[in-house]
Amino acid sequence: MHPIHGGNLVWAAMLAGCSPQEILDFSASINPWGPPPSAIAAIQSHLSRLHTYPDPGYRELRVALAQAHHLDPDWILPGNGSAELLTWAGRELAMLAATWVLAPAFGDYQRALSAFGAQLQPVPLVSLDQGWTLATLRSRSFPPGCGLLLNNPHNPTGQLFPREEVLPLLAEFDLVVVDEAFMDFLPPDRQQSLVDQVSAATNLVILRSLTKFYSLPGLRLGYAIADPQRLQRWQQWRDPWPVNELAAAAGVAVVQDTDFQQQTWRWLAAARPALFQGLAALPGLTPYPGAANFLLVRSAVSTLILQQQLLQHHRILIRDCLSFPELGDRYFRVAIRTPAENQQLLTALANILGG
Amino acid sequence: MHPIHGGNLVWAAMLAGCSPQEILDFSASINPWGPPPSAIAAIQSHLSRLHTYPDPGYRELRVALAQAHHLDPDWILPGNGSAELLTWAGRELAMLAATWVLAPAFGDYQRALSAFGAQLQPVPLVSLDQGWTLATLRSRSFPPGCGLLLNNPHNPTGQLFPREEVLPLLAEFDLVVVDEAFMDFLPPDRQQSLVDQVSAATNLVILRSLTKFYSLPGLRLGYAIADPQRLQRWQQWRDPWPVNELAAAAGVAVVQDTDFQQQTWRWLAAARPALFQGLAALPGLTPYPGAANFLLVRSAVSTLILQQQLLQHHRILIRDCLSFPELGDRYFRVAIRTPAENQQLLTALANILGG
Repeated sequence: MHPIHGGNLVWAAMLAGCSPQEILDFSASINPWGPPPSAIAAIQSHLSRLHTYPDPGYRELRVALAQAHHLDPDWILPGNGSAELLTWAGRELAMLAATWVLAPAFGDYQRALSAFGAQLQPVPLVSLDQGWTLATLRSRSFPPGCGLLLNNPHNPTGQLFPREEVLPLLAEFDLVVVDEAFMDFLPPDRQQSLVDQVSAATNLVILRSLTKFYSLPGLRLGYAIADPQRLQRWQQWRDPWPVNELAAAAGVAVVQDTDFQQQTWRWLAAARPALFQGLAALPGLTPYPGAANFLLVRSAVSTLILQQQLLQHHRILIRDCLSFPELGDRYFRVAIRTPAENQQLLTALANILGG
Repeated sequence: MHPIHGGNLVWAAMLAGCSPQEILDFSASINPWGPPPSAIAAIQSHLSRLHTYPDPGYRELRVALAQAHHLDPDWILPGNGSAELLTWAGRELAMLAATWVLAPAFGDYQRALSAFGAQLQPVPLVSLDQGWTLATLRSRSFPPGCGLLLNNPHNPTGQLFPREEVLPLLAEFDLVVVDEAFMDFLPPDRQQSLVDQVSAATNLVILRSLTKFYSLPGLRLGYAIADPQRLQRWQQWRDPWPVNELAAAAGVAVVQDTDFQQQTWRWLAAARPALFQGLAALPGLTPYPGAANFLLVRSAVSTLILQQQLLQHHRILIRDCLSFPELGDRYFRVAIRTPAENQQLLTALANILGG
């Protein structure tokens, strides 16, 4: 079965005829420099605690996350990956008349919304020469009692929406869920987060991930930031211990790991433009400027053929865009990896495409 | 806030004036001999894989579990602890007219059922001189279109219901969820599991835990056994990666760890009667015979006073039964631990109660 998410190495390894560990994975947008040693050390030091249940209040983790955001811990709910929290956001959105979602959208949005019977209303994200914009969304009016689910930076385009463009939407919808899973890839002075708005806007939910920036998708860790009453409701919907002890310990460690954060921001500031230019120089490929740790690329030839050849001849996995109906097989997404790995991708693509 | 589950060591440590690690925890029913070295070794060897997503099909884990139960892997759905799967069982039960639950019942049943608005109908578990029986449940008739949620062995009484008493109930209900979280504490020839009935009864769901027998509650791992169509529906309700990579690896290792299984069965066969007799010999305490790794005890004095004195003077935590309204403060539950720790509990209780 063709996977609908990036990072499905079991599937890729079968096609490539190798082990999953031998695949060079550009399909999952994960920081190539992690996990940070601070995370592994925290996990190691908590292996002796697996015989006890996690603290159902996740107090230590919530305090650490709250400090990082200058918030009270009551405004934070840790989850088993931000995908777990998306499920509960989906349940809340399903109580509204309809939920507007930018198209193309991260595939799990559809899953989380349809799981509870939400009415999904796609809004096309218009591609201008300058990139993708919220123009369609901002120019129209919406019926009362609706919800909005968007991500910023946007996946799969990588587009960063300025705060000023998103903020007015809070007045238009009963519930606005902003998935900021990739926001931490921007240095603090470049971020366009709405975290500082949650205390003023009780209809705002922000989802954050710790697994992409800190390379811990195998461990599962994310959190929601929202009104405490809403988070207490979610808490009653799910089991008392959704976050495992090792993820909770790693979370406390990594949010304080400023060295790793600085290193990541420095790497990305150089690696992204370098990969962008390398891709743009190849025949038939048009990368879009993006603010996160991945790039969306338009391709003159079918991405499925590219993907297959990259796997079979180079053991490289890229993310096709078949699961985004608005994009189809002329687009693909690649993570930004280390300079040497990015060069490996460019060489392999040149080998296939010529040029 | 008084905890509603066992194992809340953060709360206990505050009362005892020590660190959570210094509490001798009889409140959570966890095997004192684990985690097995095989689990820790599997976790260690997978620390290098945290930068990749888990296989969303959890193929390796499902095959290992299926082999242990002589089933096809399609009949198995791993979860982030059996509590996560209880949430989805609760959602299915909420679609029925009402769900019958033995009272007293594990507290998370109420949470999982009310999360989706299920109608909960308690059926009292009658205490006879011989213990607790399903007699009330079996002697009455039920309206059509209802569900049943029960655990076997039963928590908190420890009562094991014979298969023959549970099987006829499958004809009475549209959906029967049997929580067998403690069944693996019985040696295979003593178990009363309904696992071999799932292929014949599509209205049967069995929930199993790997965290109690293998002492991994901090890692979170359980699974459901049921009709593949039902499990695919649950899969669509939740996020694609609910089980973390380390839990999946540990699960594969422990189900094949026959040495640890044999050791646990040998220990429990001797430790349970010894602790039972020790408790029965103390003034005012009446333990109930149980089949699992815990014992329910009736107390002539308030359990809250006992609990407080055990914490403050002995750093021992027992499970009060305030969260079970049918039991109240004259009952408590204790896990069966190592012979030395059980003696520590008995000595502390004797110190408080005299005798």
